[in-house]
Amino acid sequence: MKLNRTNLEQHLDHLYDAIVVGGGAGGLSAGIYLQRFRLSSLIIDKGKARSFWMQALHNYLGLSPDTSGRQLLQQGKQHYSALAGNFLEGYVEAVTEEENTFTVRIKVGRQNSRYVMFQSKYLIVASGIIDHLLPLDDMQNVYDYAGYNLHVCMVCDGYEMTDKLCGFFAGSEASIEEMVFNLSWFTPRITIFTHGLFEVSGQMRSQLQEYGYRLVETPIQKFLGENHQMTGVELIDGSVIELETGLISMGSRYHNTYLKGIDLEMKGGNLITDKMGRTSHPRIFAIGNLKVGLNQVVVAAGDGALAATQIWREIRKDTGPRKWQENLKILA
Amino acid sequence: MKLNRTNLEQHLDHLYDAIVVGGGAGGLSAGIYLQRFRLSSLIIDKGKARSFWMQALHNYLGLSPDTSGRQLLQQGKQHYSALAGNFLEGYVEAVTEEENTFTVRIKVGRQNSRYVMFQSKYLIVASGIIDHLLPLDDMQNVYDYAGYNLHVCMVCDGYEMTDKLCGFFAGSEASIEEMVFNLSWFTPRITIFTHGLFEVSGQMRSQLQEYGYRLVETPIQKFLGENHQMTGVELIDGSVIELETGLISMGSRYHNTYLKGIDLEMKGGNLITDKMGRTSHPRIFAIGNLKVGLNQVVVAAGDGALAATQIWREIRKDTGPRKWQENLKILA
Repeated sequence: MKLNRTNLEQHLDHLYDAIVVGGGAGGLSAGIYLQRFRLSSLIIDKGKARSFWMQALHNYLGLSPDTSGRQLLQQGKQHYSALAGNFLEGYVEAVTEEENTFTVRIKVGRQNSRYVMFQSKYLIVASGIIDHLLPLDDMQNVYDYAGYNLHVCMVCDGYEMTDKLCGFFAGSEASIEEMVFNLSWFTPRITIFTHGLFEVSGQMRSQLQEYGYRLVETPIQKFLGENHQMTGVELIDGSVIELETGLISMGSRYHNTYLKGIDLEMKGGNLITDKMGRTSHPRIFAIGNLKVGLNQVVVAAGDGALAATQIWREIRKDTGPRKWQENLKILA
Repeated sequence: MKLNRTNLEQHLDHLYDAIVVGGGAGGLSAGIYLQRFRLSSLIIDKGKARSFWMQALHNYLGLSPDTSGRQLLQQGKQHYSALAGNFLEGYVEAVTEEENTFTVRIKVGRQNSRYVMFQSKYLIVASGIIDHLLPLDDMQNVYDYAGYNLHVCMVCDGYEMTDKLCGFFAGSEASIEEMVFNLSWFTPRITIFTHGLFEVSGQMRSQLQEYGYRLVETPIQKFLGENHQMTGVELIDGSVIELETGLISMGSRYHNTYLKGIDLEMKGGNLITDKMGRTSHPRIFAIGNLKVGLNQVVVAAGDGALAATQIWREIRKDTGPRKWQENLKILA
């Protein structure tokens, strides 16, 4: 059921088998599996998973390519709720551990916030990443196009950019190095925008020149376009550069600050896991974008199934088999 | 496009980037990703993937729980076809390798079969497993209920069996050992049927007795029920045992005989892979039920995304970045 300020109390003293931090694709898939394993679970979601912004998933097996991320999440929440899973909108502030039990401190409500604690045996961290978008004075101008023809994921949407005039919005020289030459697989018609945020080295300049990619260092005033279709950018000097699509690659922030009290093995900001999603802590599993691997919705959904299944195996083993009591009585 | 006997010829001399053996969930997901990476791919499908038999997927994020496996596969085929992927109904007989190219020999058509060869740089093996079902004289009687309330996958459908009178159809003592005590997590009301196929040890008999599980060794004549709902079994001695659900665990056969000429690392019949699905052969990837891991539709779909992405990375690296030729001309 959906928990809220008014019905929270009756659930506070329950020890959940697993608390899932994050109600995106990975968290919801884990929740569905946990409930179907007859385990008790609570998903805590701050809202607006990365997939929430996707206007069309394009590459998720089983769904029509024009299905939005929002629809996927909506369907997943209904599915989880029909299995009697508990769902709470809130922000996880901290996790502590004592005697094999996790205590999760949650802020509920943005205004007049209330702080509550829930406890669980296992923890699934599925809180993902938040992309840095182009920092403009009018951020609404970015949201107007993000997820439409202004993309944040090359693996997801490279195909949509095929041979189009493409703006690449970089956050650092490293992001140019890492992404632009790969992006050219889909389209070589690339204009790189630094927004004046960093210096570009001489070596990089000549490399870009060699491949014919344009470099624009004047900051951007705003995106141009209509009906969520970006058609170019206007720079602060008033000049206009025509574009047909864009890729924002300005880095991202992991939503994992609540784990800071727990020592977990990382690799470049990502949690290291085994094949079932277990981190270096035996009762913490990481799925989706937080873990080392490919950031794809369908992979996160698979991750959720794996982590939930491993947790079930362990709890099942601890519990032992059930006897058929009625039949034993008949036999006695 | 869908290839068939009449349009095969024009594709025979094409060197595909990847050939995918198997058009189940894993293979279709891989195909969708490959096409979106602007690679050329061919899926070869013998028909009737394991998910084809699932009347309700129950646990696939994004799809209503009553969606059938058949609907998922249908949607996946449409999706792949809309991306201009090539799909051929046929049976892969053998794969050989020469100078970094695979040659795949395919039997097309069950009658008046034709044999054709296709070539590729990479191979994705996604041909899965075929469950052994209860060997009855009238196999139609098994198919009437399989995928409805007669299940083959405990992780998938254990929830549906919760506290029901459950028949466990075993193929060996090992399958009892492995599955029955775990099945009791969902329901302890278990009757084990050996169908007279194997002897049960004294030790196992007393273990089953201790837990109150019934053991039936008389062979089964047929399943009883109507409208695809199995209600019990009739034994060859005419006696009837009432049931509400069933789990068939008689083993399975890997569809991988076509790989026999290639030396691949295995673990108990499954291919060993790395996190991206690569086998011990650098250009052969395994996804879904053929590889070591959990046999779940959503995991296979994730596997497909991973394998396709890794193949793209390698082909992209071999090809190198593209230049923006028109812009270079302007600059020159």
